[in-house]
Amino acid sequence: MPRAKLNIGLFGCGTVGGGVFELLHNPARRQKLAAVGVDALVSKICVQNVAKDRGLRHFSAAETTLTSSYRDILEDPRINCVVELMGGVDDAKDVVFGAIRAGKHVVTANKALVANFLPEIEQLLAEHPDVRFGYEAAVAGGIPIIHTLQGAYDSDTITEIAGIMNGTTNYMLSKMEAEGVAYDAVLKEAQDLGFAEANPSADVDGYDVQSKIAILAKLGFGGVVKPADIPTVGISRISAADFEYAKMMDSTIKLLGVAKLLKPADEKTGAPQEVTVYVSPVVVKHSNVIASISGATNLVNVRSDNLDSSAYVGPGAGRFPTANSVMNDIIQLARGDAPLDPFKTPVPLTLQPDYEAHFYVRITITDGLGVIRHVGQLAEESGVSIYSILQAPIVDRANVQFVVTTETSLLSKVRSMCQKIAALPFVQEEPLYLPIM
Amino acid sequence: MPRAKLNIGLFGCGTVGGGVFELLHNPARRQKLAAVGVDALVSKICVQNVAKDRGLRHFSAAETTLTSSYRDILEDPRINCVVELMGGVDDAKDVVFGAIRAGKHVVTANKALVANFLPEIEQLLAEHPDVRFGYEAAVAGGIPIIHTLQGAYDSDTITEIAGIMNGTTNYMLSKMEAEGVAYDAVLKEAQDLGFAEANPSADVDGYDVQSKIAILAKLGFGGVVKPADIPTVGISRISAADFEYAKMMDSTIKLLGVAKLLKPADEKTGAPQEVTVYVSPVVVKHSNVIASISGATNLVNVRSDNLDSSAYVGPGAGRFPTANSVMNDIIQLARGDAPLDPFKTPVPLTLQPDYEAHFYVRITITDGLGVIRHVGQLAEESGVSIYSILQAPIVDRANVQFVVTTETSLLSKVRSMCQKIAALPFVQEEPLYLPIM
Repeated sequence: MPRAKLNIGLFGCGTVGGGVFELLHNPARRQKLAAVGVDALVSKICVQNVAKDRGLRHFSAAETTLTSSYRDILEDPRINCVVELMGGVDDAKDVVFGAIRAGKHVVTANKALVANFLPEIEQLLAEHPDVRFGYEAAVAGGIPIIHTLQGAYDSDTITEIAGIMNGTTNYMLSKMEAEGVAYDAVLKEAQDLGFAEANPSADVDGYDVQSKIAILAKLGFGGVVKPADIPTVGISRISAADFEYAKMMDSTIKLLGVAKLLKPADEKTGAPQEVTVYVSPVVVKHSNVIASISGATNLVNVRSDNLDSSAYVGPGAGRFPTANSVMNDIIQLARGDAPLDPFKTPVPLTLQPDYEAHFYVRITITDGLGVIRHVGQLAEESGVSIYSILQAPIVDRANVQFVVTTETSLLSKVRSMCQKIAALPFVQEEPLYLPIM
Repeated sequence: MPRAKLNIGLFGCGTVGGGVFELLHNPARRQKLAAVGVDALVSKICVQNVAKDRGLRHFSAAETTLTSSYRDILEDPRINCVVELMGGVDDAKDVVFGAIRAGKHVVTANKALVANFLPEIEQLLAEHPDVRFGYEAAVAGGIPIIHTLQGAYDSDTITEIAGIMNGTTNYMLSKMEAEGVAYDAVLKEAQDLGFAEANPSADVDGYDVQSKIAILAKLGFGGVVKPADIPTVGISRISAADFEYAKMMDSTIKLLGVAKLLKPADEKTGAPQEVTVYVSPVVVKHSNVIASISGATNLVNVRSDNLDSSAYVGPGAGRFPTANSVMNDIIQLARGDAPLDPFKTPVPLTLQPDYEAHFYVRITITDGLGVIRHVGQLAEESGVSIYSILQAPIVDRANVQFVVTTETSLLSKVRSMCQKIAALPFVQEEPLYLPIM
């Protein structure tokens, strides 16, 4: 694709959209961009309310017009690139699909759209080979992880991608660890500070990470993974006690999205590669770089044959980090460098819901003689070997928590063991089980 | 640049060269590369001794010939790409410059060559606009930091690049911290293990990092920085005691290359940007991600306006990590994606040898009454404000070490203070002074 002047139609002009506009139209930056061969301009902005003041410092009515009609952009032949920053899925899908069908390049930050409609987008792009599709901002805000996975692993084989990809929950977990605060208190604080939504489910229940790891799994392994098929556990059951036990293990707890190659494709039988993908709080050793990422920062760690382990760390959200990633897609487009295969070559993949790990199992009981014997028996029945038992000093004999860690076990076996343990009369709730990394 | 079949002339077939050959010629990988549009092959290998067995598993005399003559490659019109992995500077320079002059693309891992001849290479490339130049492997082994700095910061402004870019010294410092081992012992161990050279100067005296930070400074700020102009301090004076004092400060010590924007260009006066570049052991807080990187791993941390802080972590050396970076350059070339401006647009730059920081100053004395008063007086005379004084329990009164930390001070003032302190009768040696990050 040769270099081209980009006439951009921008959908959405909120935090990120406004940031992109400012980065593109600021005269000093414009000069710098021109110097690297980038000629791009927002010609039209589509917003619900054209009368609302967007506070754009570099807005000029001579260059940019506001509209509230999608068609005003999608049917404008001078516009050759649509930047979708509206959020949501339904309208955004109409816009993005409409733009591709109209032969316009697309840049989007919409992780839910990309994750949930990845096969349809891939298909549409195959039908419109001149259209380029950028989505660097959809995963891990300011970290250039999409471009890196697109370009830096072609002669390598990725075996695992694991990341902290939600700043809100990482902030909450860091706070719980550092200050021993309870989950409810730290959630309220995050809401008061505007980090967490009034309805925090997308963050704390792991759905945000679910979309992101689905996208990274496609880039890492080539196969489409439906977000809904990814076993997803959020952080709402993590308590201050879990951090105490993690500390005894010289570890902390991080909400991770993980995609892991279990078995490569078998050339002889033609069996496709087996990959497991999950979202869960994970017990991570302090010596692991993942444990050192606190606050709203994100990290993506990639394990591969040639590089062993590489990590990419940066801001996971925010106006300018996310806008910068959108800009990097726009710059690639304008310079003619955008990849032809934004989702990499399709490779068949079998999603395996079960995986092996050491597990951390926290059990809450109302005292009870012979507890360890019972738990040991159920572990044996479930085919799970116990590695260690941790017990902090007991304060309240009617409400005792202790932790069992397992040898390498299948998730399904640990789950089955926990269900059996939950049925014991002196056990208060289903045990919490987390993989240990 | 359109996609093209690459006929590669490989110079050097040792650890990295052999790794590149295997990655390119392994049939399974070759198939994967073909799938992403990469058609590349090593047609000729230039080595000193063509008779020596290189242990190349996928070598075929039908595809590749060995030669000991540079001209055999440089004068072969079918070869359109030279991959230089010989090391050293003199011969490598002849090869690389000869290749560019002959209109062949160049990929090299040679940091000393790139750092020391950067203006000449930039000039040559300007004279040969069809030649592309890749050097991803020259800095931080397997970390894709060159491509990232080339492509991910065009709409951003970088304010600081700081990195752990020498695995040998990071291994040594990590070991000293973890086990309280003395410098000499850990150096001997690193030599016995083959991590450190018999003559370890390039590593322990910081010259290796000096070349690398010179290259990153060019990519970050656009201006050429001569390696010889970079104030460079190695790790040979770091002692187990320094790690004890760092621990009191909840910190550790890392050998960093740092390039930092002190003052942006002044549009009114036309004064160029002021940048400081140095190599030094630095006292780094444990909460900083830089402190969490132990062993032979490398890290590059980039501070910028849009992203605040981003870090890239990975293996700093080794056969396949380095070969993988060389491959990424080859893949860019073969796909026609190699950047036209591999060193970014030239921007004038004034190198400022002085910079401000808090400093750590370790003073060794033979006891002495009134030491603190004397030191305080010399600090005052030098215009340095003392922030804290740390003193571990004294074991040997004839050989006492203590640490002074300063308020934000200019390096030149701290140096002058240390020279004055060194002249005091009860002071044993010139104080060690390190910036605190």
